[in-house]
Amino acid sequence: MRINYDRIEKAQNLMREQGMIGLMIMNRDDYRYFFGDFWVQPRAILPAYGDPVFICFKAEEAELRSALGDHQVKVFSHVGEQMVSVTKTFRALAQGFPETATLKEGQPLKVGMQMWFGTPAFLVDLFRKLNPQVELVPSDPVMDELRMVKDEEEITCMRVAQEIAGLGMNRLREMLQPGRTGREIAAEVLYSMMKSGASGTSTPLHINTGIRSCWIHGSVSEEPIREGDLVVADLTPMYRGYCANLARTFVVGEPDEQQQLLIDTYLELIQAVREALKPGITVGRLDRIGREICARHGLEEYHLKGISHGIGLRFEETPASTILPQHSSVKLRENMVMTIGHTILAIPGFGGVRFEDLYQVTPQGGKILSEHPYAFLI
Amino acid sequence: MRINYDRIEKAQNLMREQGMIGLMIMNRDDYRYFFGDFWVQPRAILPAYGDPVFICFKAEEAELRSALGDHQVKVFSHVGEQMVSVTKTFRALAQGFPETATLKEGQPLKVGMQMWFGTPAFLVDLFRKLNPQVELVPSDPVMDELRMVKDEEEITCMRVAQEIAGLGMNRLREMLQPGRTGREIAAEVLYSMMKSGASGTSTPLHINTGIRSCWIHGSVSEEPIREGDLVVADLTPMYRGYCANLARTFVVGEPDEQQQLLIDTYLELIQAVREALKPGITVGRLDRIGREICARHGLEEYHLKGISHGIGLRFEETPASTILPQHSSVKLRENMVMTIGHTILAIPGFGGVRFEDLYQVTPQGGKILSEHPYAFLI
Repeated sequence: MRINYDRIEKAQNLMREQGMIGLMIMNRDDYRYFFGDFWVQPRAILPAYGDPVFICFKAEEAELRSALGDHQVKVFSHVGEQMVSVTKTFRALAQGFPETATLKEGQPLKVGMQMWFGTPAFLVDLFRKLNPQVELVPSDPVMDELRMVKDEEEITCMRVAQEIAGLGMNRLREMLQPGRTGREIAAEVLYSMMKSGASGTSTPLHINTGIRSCWIHGSVSEEPIREGDLVVADLTPMYRGYCANLARTFVVGEPDEQQQLLIDTYLELIQAVREALKPGITVGRLDRIGREICARHGLEEYHLKGISHGIGLRFEETPASTILPQHSSVKLRENMVMTIGHTILAIPGFGGVRFEDLYQVTPQGGKILSEHPYAFLI
Repeated sequence: MRINYDRIEKAQNLMREQGMIGLMIMNRDDYRYFFGDFWVQPRAILPAYGDPVFICFKAEEAELRSALGDHQVKVFSHVGEQMVSVTKTFRALAQGFPETATLKEGQPLKVGMQMWFGTPAFLVDLFRKLNPQVELVPSDPVMDELRMVKDEEEITCMRVAQEIAGLGMNRLREMLQPGRTGREIAAEVLYSMMKSGASGTSTPLHINTGIRSCWIHGSVSEEPIREGDLVVADLTPMYRGYCANLARTFVVGEPDEQQQLLIDTYLELIQAVREALKPGITVGRLDRIGREICARHGLEEYHLKGISHGIGLRFEETPASTILPQHSSVKLRENMVMTIGHTILAIPGFGGVRFEDLYQVTPQGGKILSEHPYAFLI
């Protein structure tokens, strides 16, 4: 474990500004962000004042205590005990919260929690039921502020993750031929990425072939690839907790005119969005740039919003406008890491294309984290 | 797609009993249970009366419509549009719900939703905000009733999944030797399971070595394996959406006395729990049987509750007492599929053991789905 006191201090300042008495951390990504890589079930309370409290089960106690040294560890033999103790901890924090005196009448004390895909609804409901004295709110105002802009070490991890994705994509390209299924290819691609250092993937592999190249959401096609198919592959290996996101489209055989048009348009769109990926711009504005290019090629009706999203310890981080539409007006900052190529450009019933990479936001535009060829002919 | 009208009818009867106007389905497992294998983003509304409504994005429309034939498909170009339409659909359902007239004053109409690990809290919060006229409740009273007891086809899928896990475990055993890391082994094991037909795994692989064999929660150890280590491996491949769960413990070298005691106790415990795995028993009772055996061997203080859990299209299904403690009093029924071996028997700071398999509940006790040797010596 490597407790990052600098990040903790920043989080505590932000919590106090937000009137939060603490964060309830139940996600690997926030846990790793503050405390480094430690693979117990991630459970910790980060109060607005004072030291973090770690929560673990009895059998995990010895190792956690020795890694943590002096920090407070609460230990449980079953989940019911854990819930009671979390509640008691927050009750004590609420009583000791110095800002309580200055809060307006009726303004409840808040506890922040990450409420993205990794936080199941039943845990949140249970927390609310057991802790009626506090208001549970999304921790985004604290955690986004900290996590949106990446430091050098984070960017390096993401570059390595993206390089691993590139090795997987090379393997995929070698394997692509008529008669093979997405499933067969997926086994090889995943193996090559794990052998190259991936701890796993942040989403299942997407290898959408033929008509399924249209899909926004991916899976591994079970149908054999046919001559002339479009194949859209999206690889998301993880390295030290950080996520990659590399998508490529391939044409198995000679592209027809419409396939070529989709590909040319997408590559032009990426170039334009990349040039615009500077501090101050919004994803909404990037989408308008994309729409204009699609319109110029007669493809406006097929344009979808959400060309770019944040990425880091989570596969989709703020801004993630295809999940939370209001994120399309979040202003980008220098050294955020964003994907370009999130949305499919698809003609329903025909096929679709995507090329996605990671870029660092800089005053000169998007700086790609790791180059990977656009070569799409098989 | 293969719409299962029989299951839909049963679900609708249960919904009406519960005063639910419909189910909001946003999880692959429920979606697959009713509609078969179709890999768009799973979004459907199953009303208490009438036909299901499918929700998809524009680029996915053509294929979904051709698979669905006559069914109602609502199509969106972005997520905001989707939310509005879901709300309108439920408003219309609420107005047309025949039981409205007979409901008690002030009793809100309910919408059921799965609220397990696959349902993120923010979606639930958003749904509640957009649909204040209905009360969102867990769909468990409907879905558990349907899904707890498995039919023959489901049991066959789980048997195949468990056989694939067995092939992975054989590969793992071949790879186990001092100096290798969990990471290296995981790449090979995953590859062998994917080559054997797994679509992926329902949880990351667990290969806990040395002191980490104590852990309740697993990961892939990065430390090289040492002579004398306990290694606890848990493999969870999926086949046609159904989950496997196979755990084995290995001793790398000669087991010492304490390691042997833990292993012998666990195997005795499994045997006793398996004999008791009959209709009518509860996990609470199974745990008491386990505790008794641990006590007889002087290991009572290390006993943990939750030896068994339900499994199917979800990795943990009702009863899942380590997630929801109240599930320890759910009575088992014939043809449920349960794991035995969910909890670690660990001496903190020393090491732990687990052996987990899948069993069908029968009047004669647990019938194992697929035999795999207990051989633990490397």
